[in-house]
Amino acid sequence: MKRLDTAQPDFRAAFARLLDDREGDTARVDAPVAEILAAVRARGDEALCAYTARFDRMPVTPDRLRITEAEIEAACARVPPDLLAALDVAATRIEAFHRAQMPADLRYTDADGVDLGMRWTALDAVGLYVPGGTAAYPSSVLMNAMPARVAGAARLAMCVPTPDGVLNPLVLAAARRAGVTEIYRVGGAQAVAAMAYGTATIRPVDRVVGPGNAYVAEAKRQVFGRVGIDSIAGPSEVVVVADSGTDPRIVALDLLAQAEHDALAQSILITQDATLADRVAEAVEAELRTLPRAAIAGASWGAHGAIITVRDLDEAASLIDAIAPEHLELLLADPEPLFARVRHAGAIFLGRQCAEAIGDYVGGPNHVLPTSRTARFASGLSVFDFLKRTTFIGAGPDALRRIGPAAVALARAEGLDAHALSVSARLDAVARESDKA
Amino acid sequence: MKRLDTAQPDFRAAFARLLDDREGDTARVDAPVAEILAAVRARGDEALCAYTARFDRMPVTPDRLRITEAEIEAACARVPPDLLAALDVAATRIEAFHRAQMPADLRYTDADGVDLGMRWTALDAVGLYVPGGTAAYPSSVLMNAMPARVAGAARLAMCVPTPDGVLNPLVLAAARRAGVTEIYRVGGAQAVAAMAYGTATIRPVDRVVGPGNAYVAEAKRQVFGRVGIDSIAGPSEVVVVADSGTDPRIVALDLLAQAEHDALAQSILITQDATLADRVAEAVEAELRTLPRAAIAGASWGAHGAIITVRDLDEAASLIDAIAPEHLELLLADPEPLFARVRHAGAIFLGRQCAEAIGDYVGGPNHVLPTSRTARFASGLSVFDFLKRTTFIGAGPDALRRIGPAAVALARAEGLDAHALSVSARLDAVARESDKA
Repeated sequence: MKRLDTAQPDFRAAFARLLDDREGDTARVDAPVAEILAAVRARGDEALCAYTARFDRMPVTPDRLRITEAEIEAACARVPPDLLAALDVAATRIEAFHRAQMPADLRYTDADGVDLGMRWTALDAVGLYVPGGTAAYPSSVLMNAMPARVAGAARLAMCVPTPDGVLNPLVLAAARRAGVTEIYRVGGAQAVAAMAYGTATIRPVDRVVGPGNAYVAEAKRQVFGRVGIDSIAGPSEVVVVADSGTDPRIVALDLLAQAEHDALAQSILITQDATLADRVAEAVEAELRTLPRAAIAGASWGAHGAIITVRDLDEAASLIDAIAPEHLELLLADPEPLFARVRHAGAIFLGRQCAEAIGDYVGGPNHVLPTSRTARFASGLSVFDFLKRTTFIGAGPDALRRIGPAAVALARAEGLDAHALSVSARLDAVARESDKA
Repeated sequence: MKRLDTAQPDFRAAFARLLDDREGDTARVDAPVAEILAAVRARGDEALCAYTARFDRMPVTPDRLRITEAEIEAACARVPPDLLAALDVAATRIEAFHRAQMPADLRYTDADGVDLGMRWTALDAVGLYVPGGTAAYPSSVLMNAMPARVAGAARLAMCVPTPDGVLNPLVLAAARRAGVTEIYRVGGAQAVAAMAYGTATIRPVDRVVGPGNAYVAEAKRQVFGRVGIDSIAGPSEVVVVADSGTDPRIVALDLLAQAEHDALAQSILITQDATLADRVAEAVEAELRTLPRAAIAGASWGAHGAIITVRDLDEAASLIDAIAPEHLELLLADPEPLFARVRHAGAIFLGRQCAEAIGDYVGGPNHVLPTSRTARFASGLSVFDFLKRTTFIGAGPDALRRIGPAAVALARAEGLDAHALSVSARLDAVARESDKA
């Protein structure tokens, strides 16, 4: 963990190093992924089954690729009732927030008599990738599937690898609760290929979302354009702003909740109070002694964690915007003044009671958020990812007379004569009609 | 041009071939582009100037990379007043529509007492790529820059190559009218690199937009993640639906307006009227005899053009959704019933007077639209491309008591103990407080 202080002369350089310290080379897997995509595109289910046998150690035939209703039912029956209830609290709240997020259509006639607007419509079919094994988070199934369902996508196809044939009951329960329409036991780049190009068993979708390993991320990159994709998630981060009234152990636990995700995660505390800074540093060390995932959390905190002492909230606001954190906690008696100042953050948690983990599970807003400083230009997953806009224009004779000549002039200036003629021919016809009248 | 008829037994196969007939291998330029990006990243302005000297045959020093206010002023003075007036009509209308498109923030407290919402904020800095030479369209400068300006981006940096030192006055006039804050005489992958990574002269931006050749498109692909990009535009298309009351020459001109863009463009007429179909086919041939860009338009119409005869509007609607065209013209006495049915299209033009070219220049909605069937999942350029959402959650003690336990249960089920502890420690503190009270 690094201690920084805006009052120190070397602060700018130290802060710049902190921003860059997780940049590194990602593994190059483009060639093997391109080969898998080409194979699935050419040979469909047969290639899908062959890769599944090889990578998941699970021989499978095309008729067994889809997980049956009976299997889903049986898996859900194995989930303890209190967990199903917790899943339902989460699903209900996520659904309600995303419903509130739905945008309205626009249609109006302007002063020139032009009929204008835009209309939102849902994608027909969405593909949801869910990782297998330890990276399979039921909460992520809800967070990825719910916005697509609320947006109105008719098909919601999910692919999840089942290494050695093992199903994750809570993942299947989350899929059922979220309204997933079909689930396939296939993973990796081959799953992305199947969703993008389609096979005899898996019909193609329009957009593929969901987290995955380097092969899945590269496969999404390569099918982009054929289908839409979500952003490629990088390592996660949190900035916690706390004042002297905040319990140091609470701050420590929030920093560690981020750090326990991944050794590349980054947790940063910003505070005006040097005493709080010391106490939080001690509390982190104390919690690391008992935390089950202390190896990961300790590695992250050691390599990428930081405590920054600032002179005032103005400094805090400008550091936050420079970091553009995925998560921002304002553990302050009154978070509103700083909340009003911050411009770049994926999600903000207001007040001392609002742990970031509330947002991971049951807050309602999405937990799929822009990582690695991309909150400068990107947003969290939402209904907007499963909707698209169609704009429209209507113009009668009067509107055409008012705005048509400018279109003709610009089309001619750009050397596009058919464009110009398509408007001037209509202007001529309108003039003839009005001469007759 | 192909004639198809939904009543013919081979229709499905012929239609499928039509949808695929522009798919092909794009040139692989990843290696040279990666080299250019690495050079600009490492050597900054010096590399930028070296590439400009080589590719644009224009020796330049770093202090001359930026086009000065005096040069812009002088260029604008050379634009005929009627063209400046037409540009102003276009800019005013584009600005008004994009202003109407601005979304509203959301904030509410739900039944559990949780404070929820999302806030839209603008990107700080946008980079606009503008091609040089014949592909430089002043209308595209307006269409790319205006939404960024309306969204509220503070910096709008534009890069345009000036081969042999030649500036395009109308492009500079459009940039000035659109509120571009800085213009650099640099193009190609090196311009994209400069905008993404920054150099001593060109500060980095958060998102790069605008059309370009294969090198520019590949450069955008490679910097994606570091900055945001817009979608990679493919060849353009129009579907025109016309009935017996529509002038065949008007239909022909609209089909050719699309075809004159590019030999890979695709123009499709859908009609119930076989007689109209014949007359439009004749009118296209007649116009091709005099059209200045007949070579391009004729190549496009010959290789990719089509006239499809349908039995009713239901058939028309389902063909349109399968094509998901960039542009859709409904040249019908009453376009509303079909307009209500269509789900996948980039932009729709309503009624016989509304040429697609109106939308290219002066309608108001953006002319940067999803091509090559991507309207299934993608939208045209808009203010949404220059805004991002920050969601937020606030929870007091009561809200925490209601929703916290479900978060603890799910975090434990996912094996994320620091997550669970960060919530349960707060629940314990809240319980202690209420015991005291």
